[in-house]
Amino acid sequence: MKIITNLKDLQEERRTLAQSEKSVGYVATMGYLHEGHQALMKRSKAENDITVLSIFVNPLQFGAGEDFETYPRDIVRDQQIAAQEGVDIVFMPDASAMYPGVSTIKLHVTDRADVLCGKSRPGHFDGVVTVLAKLFHLIQPDRAYFGLKDAQQVAVVQAMVQDLNFPLEIVPVATVREADGLAKSSRNVYLSEHERQEAPVIQQALQQAKQMIADGENEAENVITHVKEFIISKTSGRIDYVEILSYPALKPVKDVSERIIIAAAVFFEKARLIDNLVLEADGSMMDRF
Amino acid sequence: MKIITNLKDLQEERRTLAQSEKSVGYVATMGYLHEGHQALMKRSKAENDITVLSIFVNPLQFGAGEDFETYPRDIVRDQQIAAQEGVDIVFMPDASAMYPGVSTIKLHVTDRADVLCGKSRPGHFDGVVTVLAKLFHLIQPDRAYFGLKDAQQVAVVQAMVQDLNFPLEIVPVATVREADGLAKSSRNVYLSEHERQEAPVIQQALQQAKQMIADGENEAENVITHVKEFIISKTSGRIDYVEILSYPALKPVKDVSERIIIAAAVFFEKARLIDNLVLEADGSMMDRF
Repeated sequence: MKIITNLKDLQEERRTLAQSEKSVGYVATMGYLHEGHQALMKRSKAENDITVLSIFVNPLQFGAGEDFETYPRDIVRDQQIAAQEGVDIVFMPDASAMYPGVSTIKLHVTDRADVLCGKSRPGHFDGVVTVLAKLFHLIQPDRAYFGLKDAQQVAVVQAMVQDLNFPLEIVPVATVREADGLAKSSRNVYLSEHERQEAPVIQQALQQAKQMIADGENEAENVITHVKEFIISKTSGRIDYVEILSYPALKPVKDVSERIIIAAAVFFEKARLIDNLVLEADGSMMDRF
Repeated sequence: MKIITNLKDLQEERRTLAQSEKSVGYVATMGYLHEGHQALMKRSKAENDITVLSIFVNPLQFGAGEDFETYPRDIVRDQQIAAQEGVDIVFMPDASAMYPGVSTIKLHVTDRADVLCGKSRPGHFDGVVTVLAKLFHLIQPDRAYFGLKDAQQVAVVQAMVQDLNFPLEIVPVATVREADGLAKSSRNVYLSEHERQEAPVIQQALQQAKQMIADGENEAENVITHVKEFIISKTSGRIDYVEILSYPALKPVKDVSERIIIAAAVFFEKARLIDNLVLEADGSMMDRF
């Protein structure tokens, strides 16, 4: 496994790979790897000759007062996990290498970004697409793998790739969960023991929403109200949002009659957790993306 | 010579080229080809295995009241010229293929764009970088060739490539001129016979500026005043701007003591013409970029 920190070294490595005509799969992460990331690496390994993993806590996608400084980091353990998963190249640039000066160009997401996490994190997705545009150009993957826990990110990045004709495929991968249903997340380490016991309630609430719709409930607002009430009654968390939107366009829906995402974000003491379900028009879980 | 109008066909062609490991040079144009474009094609032919020419009058880079509708077009002649220059692939997409729907992402140039042509053409360079980002992704050139008549465009595009780590090199190519010094431009056909006789005055004025600096004039403002007065006295045109800026950063300079661009834009009845000189700190013409 090669560990590359320098942009020039990566570009050199990429040119060599191009000559060998090997397909390249790519997993972009902010490190502190967990089974969710491992699922992305496994999928990339299965579908490509070479798998590149990037570890970069991107300052551009954190807002003021967010957890950029305290975002959990463990590079040694990350490298062990990457090696264990058979990753070929780990790219770990410094922020000063990725952003060497004042940028002359801004990428701004004008759609799909003013709902869900975008509403409470202004500029977040601008930072996400900017760093991904750079990383896509540096790594030039054939396929890039993203977890569906960040379903809005998947929708935004797929739209960027389509609108700007990036020569690569975005492959969404199902959320990996703990045994009790909690979505795997680097931020789960922030939870107190008590909060950790409460956190699976988010997924339980979303499953209840799915059941309500299966039982014939058609009005999005009724489903949202139930999900909110369930989370409030069962946890100490504070709800950031519970929304039902079309997917992947992320437009408001009144009736549940097309492919939708039911998504929730809940603030705990030191962590904001997100989770979602994507349901097909017939109420079944979306399992192909 | 292959003529491709469809994005999917181009992407397919590009994948085939990747397998053959051939280097790709690229010339982006809006058509109505002239000797300036031909110089770009010749340079690309000399430095690459394959040369791709795109012809696309990009609506996104024209402002309200500008000449998008009337921009000169002659596809038959363009194809003859491309064939004569040995171009391998001509890519001529429809606007509906390039912009199939509402875009979810905007590229905005935040530096180098609020001077020169950017000042009187708000949003122009946003449109330029957006279409070039798309075309670079579709064509994936190793080198892209741009004429220095649009020196600001070269500076903006070089900055974009650097900031977003596009895996390609921007190659600026010297302006091609008529025998009397007028810079070749698709828009020269708009000039009346009388205006055509006056138009070389722009280049003459810039040459006088170069001479003033060679003779010891150091203050940018004095040089600018002379250039303006010379153009006004010798033509019926109306000056849009005459500016002296650092190059390629395009920042204001008071003293002429670094690499600078002296640039002018002049409105005639039906055409706005631009021209420039780039001078090294010692006053010599920049001949390597």
